[in-house]
Amino acid sequence: MGLMDVLFGRPLATEEERAERIGPAKGIPIFGLDALSSAAYGPEAALTLLIPLGLAGVGYILPITIAVVMLLVMVYFSYRQTITAYPQGGGSYTVASENLGVWAGLLAGASLMVDYVLTAAVGISAGVGALISAVPALQKHTLALCMIILIVVTLINLRGVSESGGVFLIPTYLFILCLLGSIALGVFKTLSAGGHPVPLVPPPQPGRTTETLGIWLLARAFASGCTAMTGVEAVSNGVQAFREPASATARFTLTLVIGILIVMLGGIAFLCKVFGIGATVPGQPGYQSVLSQLIAAIAGNGIFYGVSIASILLVLALSANTAFADFPRLGRAIAQNGFLPIGLAVRGRRLVYTEGVYALAALAGTLLVLFGGVTDRLIPLYAVGAFMAFTLSQAGMVMHWKRTAGAGSVKSMFINGVGAAATGITVIIVLVAKFTEGAWITLLLIPGLIATMRLVKRHYHQVEKEINTSARLNTQDLKPPLVVITIDRWTRIADKALRFAMTISPEVQALHVEFDQGSDNLANQWHDLVEEPAEQAGLAPPRLVIIKSPYRFVIRPILDYVLDLEKRNPSRQIAVLTPELVERRWHLNLLHNHRATALKALFLFQGDRRITVINIPWYLTE
Amino acid sequence: MGLMDVLFGRPLATEEERAERIGPAKGIPIFGLDALSSAAYGPEAALTLLIPLGLAGVGYILPITIAVVMLLVMVYFSYRQTITAYPQGGGSYTVASENLGVWAGLLAGASLMVDYVLTAAVGISAGVGALISAVPALQKHTLALCMIILIVVTLINLRGVSESGGVFLIPTYLFILCLLGSIALGVFKTLSAGGHPVPLVPPPQPGRTTETLGIWLLARAFASGCTAMTGVEAVSNGVQAFREPASATARFTLTLVIGILIVMLGGIAFLCKVFGIGATVPGQPGYQSVLSQLIAAIAGNGIFYGVSIASILLVLALSANTAFADFPRLGRAIAQNGFLPIGLAVRGRRLVYTEGVYALAALAGTLLVLFGGVTDRLIPLYAVGAFMAFTLSQAGMVMHWKRTAGAGSVKSMFINGVGAAATGITVIIVLVAKFTEGAWITLLLIPGLIATMRLVKRHYHQVEKEINTSARLNTQDLKPPLVVITIDRWTRIADKALRFAMTISPEVQALHVEFDQGSDNLANQWHDLVEEPAEQAGLAPPRLVIIKSPYRFVIRPILDYVLDLEKRNPSRQIAVLTPELVERRWHLNLLHNHRATALKALFLFQGDRRITVINIPWYLTE
Repeated sequence: MGLMDVLFGRPLATEEERAERIGPAKGIPIFGLDALSSAAYGPEAALTLLIPLGLAGVGYILPITIAVVMLLVMVYFSYRQTITAYPQGGGSYTVASENLGVWAGLLAGASLMVDYVLTAAVGISAGVGALISAVPALQKHTLALCMIILIVVTLINLRGVSESGGVFLIPTYLFILCLLGSIALGVFKTLSAGGHPVPLVPPPQPGRTTETLGIWLLARAFASGCTAMTGVEAVSNGVQAFREPASATARFTLTLVIGILIVMLGGIAFLCKVFGIGATVPGQPGYQSVLSQLIAAIAGNGIFYGVSIASILLVLALSANTAFADFPRLGRAIAQNGFLPIGLAVRGRRLVYTEGVYALAALAGTLLVLFGGVTDRLIPLYAVGAFMAFTLSQAGMVMHWKRTAGAGSVKSMFINGVGAAATGITVIIVLVAKFTEGAWITLLLIPGLIATMRLVKRHYHQVEKEINTSARLNTQDLKPPLVVITIDRWTRIADKALRFAMTISPEVQALHVEFDQGSDNLANQWHDLVEEPAEQAGLAPPRLVIIKSPYRFVIRPILDYVLDLEKRNPSRQIAVLTPELVERRWHLNLLHNHRATALKALFLFQGDRRITVINIPWYLTE
Repeated sequence: MGLMDVLFGRPLATEEERAERIGPAKGIPIFGLDALSSAAYGPEAALTLLIPLGLAGVGYILPITIAVVMLLVMVYFSYRQTITAYPQGGGSYTVASENLGVWAGLLAGASLMVDYVLTAAVGISAGVGALISAVPALQKHTLALCMIILIVVTLINLRGVSESGGVFLIPTYLFILCLLGSIALGVFKTLSAGGHPVPLVPPPQPGRTTETLGIWLLARAFASGCTAMTGVEAVSNGVQAFREPASATARFTLTLVIGILIVMLGGIAFLCKVFGIGATVPGQPGYQSVLSQLIAAIAGNGIFYGVSIASILLVLALSANTAFADFPRLGRAIAQNGFLPIGLAVRGRRLVYTEGVYALAALAGTLLVLFGGVTDRLIPLYAVGAFMAFTLSQAGMVMHWKRTAGAGSVKSMFINGVGAAATGITVIIVLVAKFTEGAWITLLLIPGLIATMRLVKRHYHQVEKEINTSARLNTQDLKPPLVVITIDRWTRIADKALRFAMTISPEVQALHVEFDQGSDNLANQWHDLVEEPAEQAGLAPPRLVIIKSPYRFVIRPILDYVLDLEKRNPSRQIAVLTPELVERRWHLNLLHNHRATALKALFLFQGDRRITVINIPWYLTE
């Protein structure tokens, strides 16, 4: 296991879990990276839609951002309450399941799963996209770079939650420092210049006005700006990863994340207006991101600019990690209720839900391959999933307070109710505004996922109904099995297998397939080699059964014989023993027939509960 | 088996073999296609090297062709004798093995195998290349077209030798008819025009003379012309495929093939000289194959021209089939001597050595993929293999006649000796003349293949030494195995597996892996559910063994326990029973753990002869 230890770290015992738990310092990079990184694309997305309004459009960024921040504050208070009420974690899925019923829970779970897969894919390709803007020579390696990052993020996450926090610590805090520093410097310059600071590097002039403001444009700009809110859910899903008192630590982490995000969003919007910075058209010559323009205007084109841009690229690429931190936990919660394969609820050697990590890596990898590493067009898709989850979570909390009916529950109900209404309206706005851009795909994916989860649940239910029993061990009819052993020719392997057969049952038949008439001498040898010694030892002699096979089939006649034998002995267990040569070096296995393995596979499809295939291994000494 | 019957035909019984045997009419397409198709590229290859000599070069094609034809006649007489002496077939490999020893046989076998793989790949890509010259739009599908032809040829050959002869009948005879017809018409026109016929379509003028004739140029032109002789070996390998009297039928077929080939080669050379037709530079504008020029000059650009060119393309593509007819037979001969995996000697449902067909398809397919479907550069490689085999075969025949020492054996020895000397010299000429063009690759491949075959033989020898026995059944120590059964929780599956365990041995231990302290209640239930009923039935109660696993590993602790148990019971067999849930629909298997399968795989690597893993299947009823 040497290689596994290097790649994934030493195994962790279940009781070591406490030591793996984290505080806010690691919690921000792990569960907050996705939310914080959206400051890099949310405002830009809104400003891009305002381009047709020209310079006037830049002015509208402030009210739009205020609307987004208000929504964010509502969602924040709502999730604070959720964390308190659900210290076991689980987020929207748990809250919606427990309070609104199975279907609402599945809707929330499916929405979030789609959201996380998209977050992982889009985060990685956005990071690679930014890297390629800086180094265009890498263009042709886009997909390869995406895959390398995906593998690195996957490996880090397989090592466990504590280590992944350590890795992401530096880029996250560098990003926060640079962005908050720029904003502070910009605000200071604005105040000292009486509201009209001079940009160190003048931003490009916004284009001409080609449209006038309408409610439809405003709605679309708001829907785009809402992408800044994705990732807020993550902390509430991961409460159990925080150190005790878990709820309080998680709440504090959430406060820090939302606080920093609000300062970033507000600061960016304010400074864009002051410096007159608008979006440029993506993919066209002269394109420059809003944050790049803003930092250059405030701090010039020096080292600080370079470090800031680098930290933005890094954080975008690593925001995929939030999905990796949360998706496996969500998968476990759903799997524990029987709606997803049970493997998702099994913790691996590093206390991580390993199969969830693999599943997310496979799904995100598939998306990246399908889109050749360019998944920008998927951005509109995932706001739908996130806001659907927000809405269901808060609606669930309303029901929760209604049921508990304790002190302050009316106030809590009101907070969550307002949140649910606001995010519910936002879902509709985003769906309508982004429908043709791709939101319709989400509308197909989510019901498909829910249907699959129902089928999984039904299957588990049927299996459980079939295998569950509280009956005591059945001791009726405990007769030794009828043993059929396949023998090619008389070798030590046959001798060993026959000995094993005779120890487990007195009724042994040796089955021999003969191709050509009379070409075999096993029949002649049988009496001397087997029957006589067995009789002398006082044992029931194994009977030799010869099957002719004019078509040189080997497996088919054995199958037919055994199935017929089973039919003729309706109350007996049948054990088919197949002697098997085992080579420890895999390539040497090419040198031998694998009838034993093939026979076993065929019985899996054609056999039934009364037939057991036993491969008797013969290890070659070498 | 419906689909298999459609694709591969109904299974054939071993005694149906006689009916599958063929006469000369089918023998020519099956075993002669490769030899005959070389008329389409052999003369062209020689003429291409004569281009620098200008018009004068065209004149030298006649002496070069005469040399090739003389060599061909020697080889013909030599192989006639071989067929008579070896009616079981086997060709160079058999002859060299029996008369010159194991090493010479392996050298011949390896040379031929390389030759056949190259024949298959080059034939297909030459056919596709010709098709692309006609329809340039198909250029970008080169590899796909090669693969389609490869698959079709493979499927046809899996159906068996008789059917593949039927498929190739029409194109082969069309090709022979067109080419012999053109030659006859050309000779007639030449004679009636007193040796100076007027071409209907004037061929392009040969280029200027840039070199003078040297021995080196002549040697290289001769070496290229010798590619016209590849494929002659095929008939002698396939004697057993011919109808009785097999030797006579095979000899007659060989005579026909060589006779037609000589007329073709001689006719082409003669008419090229008369019409002043030289090669044009391949891959350059204005390129036109020699046969295309020749047929146009003789018969004009009409329907006959079109049909002839089409038949040439088809025959080139299908010449790969000769390799498919012969390679599996060669593989069988080598495998029967233990130098290749024994699977190559097993006849499938259609009496074909199925694995040989697969192996050739895989190797040729790999070559085609590696070279993107353009394998023209491999042509020089395979003359080496063919002539190496010729030489060894004839040298072997010299030894054969020396040993038999009957009437006429001196004459026979002389014929084969001259043949061996001539082809031996040719091997050296080809190797030297084509060394830098790729013949060196053959010099690496052949020894590599021989080394592999020696290793395979040594391995089989060791296995045989280990498993071979004439001892009678050992009836000592026939104690029932110690049975270890893994139990997760109490279900019908566990009940069934435990019942099976108790029928095969009175000593049963149930192994249960526990993750968390005291979280399990199997220990509490065991007495009621299992021990009590067993005691009441008068049976030895299975013991429950609980293993704690703080790292949540399941498989590792079971492995360790069983290996330790084995060590503590040095004289006992151990049977590990793993209950296994079986879903007939594969995708449902994703929903369950596969510890039983994983455990079995691990015991294959870490277990030994005293441990047998038995998966007890539980089929879900659905």
